[in-house]
Amino acid sequence: MRRPALLLAKLAAFAGIAVWTLLAAGHQEATEAPVFGITLPAGYRDWRLISVAHEEGSLNDIRAILGNDVAIKTYREGKLPFPDGTIIARIAWSYVSSEENNKVFGRSQSFIAGNPTEWYLQLMVKNSKKYAATGGWGFAQFNKEGIPADVEKHKTCFRCHEPVKDRDFVFTRYAP
Amino acid sequence: MRRPALLLAKLAAFAGIAVWTLLAAGHQEATEAPVFGITLPAGYRDWRLISVAHEEGSLNDIRAILGNDVAIKTYREGKLPFPDGTIIARIAWSYVSSEENNKVFGRSQSFIAGNPTEWYLQLMVKNSKKYAATGGWGFAQFNKEGIPADVEKHKTCFRCHEPVKDRDFVFTRYAP
Repeated sequence: MRRPALLLAKLAAFAGIAVWTLLAAGHQEATEAPVFGITLPAGYRDWRLISVAHEEGSLNDIRAILGNDVAIKTYREGKLPFPDGTIIARIAWSYVSSEENNKVFGRSQSFIAGNPTEWYLQLMVKNSKKYAATGGWGFAQFNKEGIPADVEKHKTCFRCHEPVKDRDFVFTRYAP
Repeated sequence: MRRPALLLAKLAAFAGIAVWTLLAAGHQEATEAPVFGITLPAGYRDWRLISVAHEEGSLNDIRAILGNDVAIKTYREGKLPFPDGTIIARIAWSYVSSEENNKVFGRSQSFIAGNPTEWYLQLMVKNSKKYAATGGWGFAQFNKEGIPADVEKHKTCFRCHEPVKDRDFVFTRYAP
C-alpha cells in the first residue's frame, strides 16, 4: 500500500504544480487583448491630456483621452498621419451628478467622474505594417483590472473608426 | 529753429521709449493675477490628469483638472491636507455637441471640448503661510491668452470653496 500512496501523492503534487502554472500563465495572457495582441502600456494614466468628452446613451460616461509622447507631439504639430509608436488611450468613468458640488452652486449643474466604466480603457496603437489591414491601427479594450474584452468586441473597433479616415481614423481632436 | 526741433525729436524719442517700456512692463505684469499675486505656472498643460467634469448652466463647459507632481502624489496617497507647493489647474472648454461623432453613432450622444472658455484656466496654489487667511490656498483665473481676471472676480474664489473645508477646500476627487 505504501508505493501506490506515494505515487498518488507525487501525482497530486505534479497536478497541483501543473494547474498553478496554467493559472499563472493564463493570468499573464489575460493582459494581452485578442485580435491585435495589444498589452497594457505601462504608466498610461500618467500620459498627457489630448481632450475630454461626454457620451450619452448606453455609454453614459465622461472620458479623458490621453496620449503617449509620440501622440502628443503629433497632435501639437498638427501633422497627419500619426507615426508608428503612437498610442492613444481613452479612459472613461460613469457620468455622475455631483450632489456635493450642486449644493454649493445652489442648483443641479455639476457632473463628475464616478467609477470606472466596464471597458475603462480603450487603446489605439499605430503600427502601419502590423496593422495594415485596419488603417495602421491596432485596437484594444480593457476593464479596470486589465482584463481585455473578447474577440467579438475587438472586431467591432475598426468599423466604427472607418468614417474618420481623413483624420487618420482618430475621432478626438486636440483640446487647446 | 534747429535746436528746438532737435530737442522735440529727442523728447519724442524718449517718450516713445518710455511708453514702449511701460507697455512691455505692463504686458509682463498682466500675467500676475491680482489679490493672490499668482503667475502662470510653466507647462501646466503637460501636467497629469486628476479628473474631468461637466458644468451645466451659465458655465456650460467641459473641463479637465490637472495637477503638478505634488498634487498628483498627494491625491494618490489620499492624505490631506495638500502640502505647500501643490498646484491644481482647472482648464475648461465650451461644451459642444459633436456632429461628426453623432453621425457615426447614428444618434445625438457625443459632447466634446470646443473653444477655450472665457476664464480658461483656474489655479489653486498651496502656501499655508502666504495664504493663511484663505485656508492656505491662493486662487487665480486667466483667459487663454494668460490675462488674469480682475480683483472682484478673484475675491469670489475662496467663498465658493469654503463649504468643502473638510477636503482641504478642493472640490475635485481623483478619478481612478
